[in-house]
Amino acid sequence: MNWDQVNQSIDQQYDRMVEDRRYLHQHPELSFHEKETSEYITKRYDELGIPYEKDIGGYGIVARIEGGKEGKTVALRADFDALPIQEENDVPYKSKVDGVMHACGHDGHTSTLLGLAEAVWSSKENLPGTMVLIHQPAEEYAPGGAKPMIDEGVLDGVDAVFGTHLWSNAPLNVIQSSRGPFMAGADRFEITIQGKGGHGAMPHQTKDPVVMAGQAIVELQQIVSRRIDPLESAVLTIGRVEAGNAFNVIPDTAKLVGTVRILNKETQESIIEEMDRILKGITTSYDADYELDYVKGYPTVNNHEKEVSYYLDQGNEIDGTAGIEEVPPVMGGEDFAYYLEERPGAFFFTGAQKEGHYYPHHHPKFDIDERALPTAAKALLHGYRKYQENN
Amino acid sequence: MNWDQVNQSIDQQYDRMVEDRRYLHQHPELSFHEKETSEYITKRYDELGIPYEKDIGGYGIVARIEGGKEGKTVALRADFDALPIQEENDVPYKSKVDGVMHACGHDGHTSTLLGLAEAVWSSKENLPGTMVLIHQPAEEYAPGGAKPMIDEGVLDGVDAVFGTHLWSNAPLNVIQSSRGPFMAGADRFEITIQGKGGHGAMPHQTKDPVVMAGQAIVELQQIVSRRIDPLESAVLTIGRVEAGNAFNVIPDTAKLVGTVRILNKETQESIIEEMDRILKGITTSYDADYELDYVKGYPTVNNHEKEVSYYLDQGNEIDGTAGIEEVPPVMGGEDFAYYLEERPGAFFFTGAQKEGHYYPHHHPKFDIDERALPTAAKALLHGYRKYQENN
Amino acid sequence: MNWDQVNQSIDQQYDRMVEDRRYLHQHPELSFHEKETSEYITKRYDELGIPYEKDIGGYGIVARIEGGKEGKTVALRADFDALPIQEENDVPYKSKVDGVMHACGHDGHTSTLLGLAEAVWSSKENLPGTMVLIHQPAEEYAPGGAKPMIDEGVLDGVDAVFGTHLWSNAPLNVIQSSRGPFMAGADRFEITIQGKGGHGAMPHQTKDPVVMAGQAIVELQQIVSRRIDPLESAVLTIGRVEAGNAFNVIPDTAKLVGTVRILNKETQESIIEEMDRILKGITTSYDADYELDYVKGYPTVNNHEKEVSYYLDQGNEIDGTAGIEEVPPVMGGEDFAYYLEERPGAFFFTGAQKEGHYYPHHHPKFDIDERALPTAAKALLHGYRKYQENN
Amino acid sequence: MNWDQVNQSIDQQYDRMVEDRRYLHQHPELSFHEKETSEYITKRYDELGIPYEKDIGGYGIVARIEGGKEGKTVALRADFDALPIQEENDVPYKSKVDGVMHACGHDGHTSTLLGLAEAVWSSKENLPGTMVLIHQPAEEYAPGGAKPMIDEGVLDGVDAVFGTHLWSNAPLNVIQSSRGPFMAGADRFEITIQGKGGHGAMPHQTKDPVVMAGQAIVELQQIVSRRIDPLESAVLTIGRVEAGNAFNVIPDTAKLVGTVRILNKETQESIIEEMDRILKGITTSYDADYELDYVKGYPTVNNHEKEVSYYLDQGNEIDGTAGIEEVPPVMGGEDFAYYLEERPGAFFFTGAQKEGHYYPHHHPKFDIDERALPTAAKALLHGYRKYQENN
Repeated sequence: MNWDQVNQSIDQQYDRMVEDRRYLHQHPELSFHEKETSEYITKRYDELGIPYEKDIGGYGIVARIEGGKEGKTVALRADFDALPIQEENDVPYKSKVDGVMHACGHDGHTSTLLGLAEAVWSSKENLPGTMVLIHQPAEEYAPGGAKPMIDEGVLDGVDAVFGTHLWSNAPLNVIQSSRGPFMAGADRFEITIQGKGGHGAMPHQTKDPVVMAGQAIVELQQIVSRRIDPLESAVLTIGRVEAGNAFNVIPDTAKLVGTVRILNKETQESIIEEMDRILKGITTSYDADYELDYVKGYPTVNNHEKEVSYYLDQGNEIDGTAGIEEVPPVMGGEDFAYYLEERPGAFFFTGAQKEGHYYPHHHPKFDIDERALPTAAKALLHGYRKYQENN
Repeated sequence: MNWDQVNQSIDQQYDRMVEDRRYLHQHPELSFHEKETSEYITKRYDELGIPYEKDIGGYGIVARIEGGKEGKTVALRADFDALPIQEENDVPYKSKVDGVMHACGHDGHTSTLLGLAEAVWSSKENLPGTMVLIHQPAEEYAPGGAKPMIDEGVLDGVDAVFGTHLWSNAPLNVIQSSRGPFMAGADRFEITIQGKGGHGAMPHQTKDPVVMAGQAIVELQQIVSRRIDPLESAVLTIGRVEAGNAFNVIPDTAKLVGTVRILNKETQESIIEEMDRILKGITTSYDADYELDYVKGYPTVNNHEKEVSYYLDQGNEIDGTAGIEEVPPVMGGEDFAYYLEERPGAFFFTGAQKEGHYYPHHHPKFDIDERALPTAAKALLHGYRKYQENN
Repeated sequence: MNWDQVNQSIDQQYDRMVEDRRYLHQHPELSFHEKETSEYITKRYDELGIPYEKDIGGYGIVARIEGGKEGKTVALRADFDALPIQEENDVPYKSKVDGVMHACGHDGHTSTLLGLAEAVWSSKENLPGTMVLIHQPAEEYAPGGAKPMIDEGVLDGVDAVFGTHLWSNAPLNVIQSSRGPFMAGADRFEITIQGKGGHGAMPHQTKDPVVMAGQAIVELQQIVSRRIDPLESAVLTIGRVEAGNAFNVIPDTAKLVGTVRILNKETQESIIEEMDRILKGITTSYDADYELDYVKGYPTVNNHEKEVSYYLDQGNEIDGTAGIEEVPPVMGGEDFAYYLEERPGAFFFTGAQKEGHYYPHHHPKFDIDERALPTAAKALLHGYRKYQENN
Repeated sequence: MNWDQVNQSIDQQYDRMVEDRRYLHQHPELSFHEKETSEYITKRYDELGIPYEKDIGGYGIVARIEGGKEGKTVALRADFDALPIQEENDVPYKSKVDGVMHACGHDGHTSTLLGLAEAVWSSKENLPGTMVLIHQPAEEYAPGGAKPMIDEGVLDGVDAVFGTHLWSNAPLNVIQSSRGPFMAGADRFEITIQGKGGHGAMPHQTKDPVVMAGQAIVELQQIVSRRIDPLESAVLTIGRVEAGNAFNVIPDTAKLVGTVRILNKETQESIIEEMDRILKGITTSYDADYELDYVKGYPTVNNHEKEVSYYLDQGNEIDGTAGIEEVPPVMGGEDFAYYLEERPGAFFFTGAQKEGHYYPHHHPKFDIDERALPTAAKALLHGYRKYQENN
């Protein structure tokens, strides 16, 4: 296999990758509802003539390139769902769907994998092993799309798995990862405070759930600062608050929806216990009730030692990289964790920071520098190659 | 005029009043959107043959019964809008409109006035003076429906005005009112906290508007308890909170919508000033911004001394009343205030409390004891009569 | 009796009143510890030759001037304790006692009553009735000094009782009072939050009572704003917080000491219940404990209708007054309440506001305009005279 | 040198070590006030005949044992100050000083070093190198006692330095440490909130510093949970609150005193900035003022790689140890940090946990298992020996 040639072929796909990414950016779909995105991907594989299976564990797609030479079977994964965010970028490829946006770069992940597939397909006779291309839905919303795809057998016969995230916090084309825990466990919770509504002018006849919600928002922040070991990392964020419809009516209930990020299970258990205790306290003080629906989400992304070393120790061999950085774990969650629970492999960031001012992931003005797309493709190919060479 | 006969005639309208009220209860419409309610009322006047004008100051209707005898022109007013509340009563006449409910009794006000009109119409030759029946939209939402109806001239030629509110906090058929200030001034505000959104797992890269909103909810309560004279009465209620769409995304903004009730203007000014100061403080502490949109609403309902005495001193003459109570002012607002700024008159409550457990106004389980309907009609008639006799 | 002459005599006492007041101001003593103040007063009566009894219900003193003419027995009362406040005024008569200050004007009350006694004493042959001069200790600290003095019989044979408070919020020499409730009930409470201490760097091993105290301070303010009828007046103030000794040690307990003011008993009961509920909630949320020691203090000062009318309707007859104002009740408490539970009478304010900037009562820079002293004396004499003339 | 013999000799000192420790426990002295403790130590050295210098950098003492054989000069350090905590243990050796307690084990550190000195002194002819015994005051209160002792030259001629902390969180006789950062930087702050006091019943005339303090306590906790990178470790604890003297007087000011722990300087700077921002916000919302007096305290204790390996890699050679544990850094601060900024060396914990229930450091019921004393002495000796052997 002439790997350099494949890399050049990837570079030649650049315009097509940008075109795919921009099309998907304009047509984002929420987790578990990515029907048209899925159709777009299969249409592309149809054009290329690459065989695939679809509707795996939902809208999941698995394409497969059997190499002409013996080798291992290695899976590469890209996710393709978007987020319930109203895009605020003023770009030609701005989202056409109200309130939905690719604010996390999954549009780019998809086009990266498609570009890589096309580049490899033309040299498949010389390819050692089998390349499995996993296009996964619903990464953003636990229980996620990885689990059902694995349950339907996408890792059967697979020896190792690699994945990347385009990362706006990392400089363009810098590769980042960490040994062991790399991305946090990510849980979701929904709190319903059950008060007693009434006329906005007669609060004493009610049990005001809005005031209780206000207190809950403030007090829940004490868990991280006061109730877990300061040396443990954890985040508790409330992303959505929903209470009442009318300005002059005290509602019956208030809803707080959020996420918890942790790097180990003990901290997770402590946080659940303390959330419960705080909510019990607040509602006790108003003689009211609450419900805490806590959904344990993705586990921690744990990189395998040998496979992550292909990046952290040998990453400078990747064509187009601007540097390699071993970073501390990040608190964002990823259902790529499930693949790494089943198979050896590694997950890494491909720096995609725009020049000048850039915005964090999940921000209405999030965007990527598209020059990261070929680098991401080459870096995935690098993992594939190293695994073949070392096993 | 044989007033006793009219009262008996009102009693005979009972079933019809219940029917009207229940129909309206099943078909509630939000303030400024009461198209079908308005049509229902005009259809009823058409049936009765009572002349009216419609589309006054919006969906307002004014019917007019010219009495056969000389006298004063006295207006009686009923409002007919509903609230954005999802009804939780399990009754045959439950609201058929999702999220909209007559949770304040305006359905009953309307049927009361219709029943009174029908009863008086048949004896109109003996009626002294002219009875003006004002059906007003949009009481629940400032700037309200009273002001535009007055601006279009509904009080032209009117000497006095009376109105009642069916009241679930008062025992059945007990009349309540107070001399001077009776119902509070009612303002509306909308607070937008402008933070900086981002990924739910990276709070330190954001300015979290949800946490700021939580603090604002809690701290704004200190205005009433710490920053205005304890002898002044005031309420600050946040009825609606709106922030974020996704559990794992910190939003850019949070919105708090609510109401302020006051009995005088100085307290109103103090509250606005303190709200501003608190919001400035909270957003300063996060290097963020805010906008406070404060809409001064209805003024205080001030009963006129002579006219309210018809109820507080002579109310036991009303057929069917279960008692008269002089009560302290209530904090609820009413745009009936505008009529009393223009003409002599009075506003009073007609007790409509259900036996056993009852719910406050604006509660999803609010309901009235319909036996209050004829009493309310007779009590309005009583004001009309007394004004004729005393002027 | 030539009342004008007595008023002139009072005016002649001005320098002496100022001297007494300033001496006492420099030598303040805390409630229940006013030994030297008491001795100063008896020494003054010794000089004047007016008979008195001392050590009544503690350091209480009762002097008595039997008039030469028949009449009623009327008591006039002045309190003489000071407060645990460090004076911040820069005046020649500044408090010489560290941390103790006459920040409420009781020094002036005492000198007023002494001046009045001296002025009346010289004309006692013409005085109708008997003037009882009550010098009372410990007004500032419940259960107060009034109750034990009454228990020891100071009102035996007394027909009516009057008292005044020099008032920095009222313009100089303006008389203020209200019919019925005039000053609030005043309770005291002490909250102990029992957490679990530990090293300041390991909060997760503790139950931090400081954070719980912070929350309690904030949440207790919701009682007045959210949990009692907005038309009721109430105040809950925490005047003292005490927690921990070392900057780097989380203490076991935190203490909050404060006062509640109310105008009726139902509100009082509601507040106690809600305080308990809030503290239970907060400590539940930390799996900690609390103790609430709530001491019901003075009842509401209720003026008697006829006696207060001497001031509100006939007060302009008092020599030196700058006006009469009927004001709403004030939230400050007074154990004068106990006298009015036993005998007819009235309590009123004598305006003592300093020109330019002035400070509220209990402020480290509180001071009075001493020109109020003779006016206060004449106003007390006025009550005495009116009661004689009307009974 | 027969090191085993010295270890045996240490074991024979056990009763004496307990006796010294208990005497010191009964006579604790606060930081910078350890006059008698210092005298006790010098008296003991006088008894033993070991030469020392006293009053170094305050009450500091340095004893010195010149060995009969050539070698390096190695310092061993023990601190001897106590804390402002009221002891709650019911033991025969309970603190006799009201409100002062050895709640951190420094009594044991002192007796350990005395016992070691006595054991070594008798074999000094065979001792390689020079043992410098540093008895240091004022570890608990920044700027601490280490800095002035170093400034007066205690490290002159010293090649390396070792120290230990008896640790109630570690099992008896287990040695714990970590490579690199081992104990956190420890800062002290004092916040003064300048409001405007007044009568407890008239809060609207004041700017209540108690309510502002309550909010500050609650909001400052958001720094750790919301405003610094979740992967950074930090603690912000308020150990002391002080506001007001009287239950019914709103004070002018409130004071919050506490500590911040951090593992790096950037986090420290962020925290100071955010504290300032929060306090500015809170006082802005009350139109009040504040002062933040932030004293940067001890730097992070950074163990030197080679010297800490004597414990983490070779610690099982120490007689009496129950195990070696490499632990994550702890958030407690230590001015031993200053020694390690000047010389190679290491700091480690000697497990002193009592069987059954035990209490954390700085708790009123803190105590140690005294069987840790000889182990601590042998472990210090081990560092001394290893340094001689390896340099």
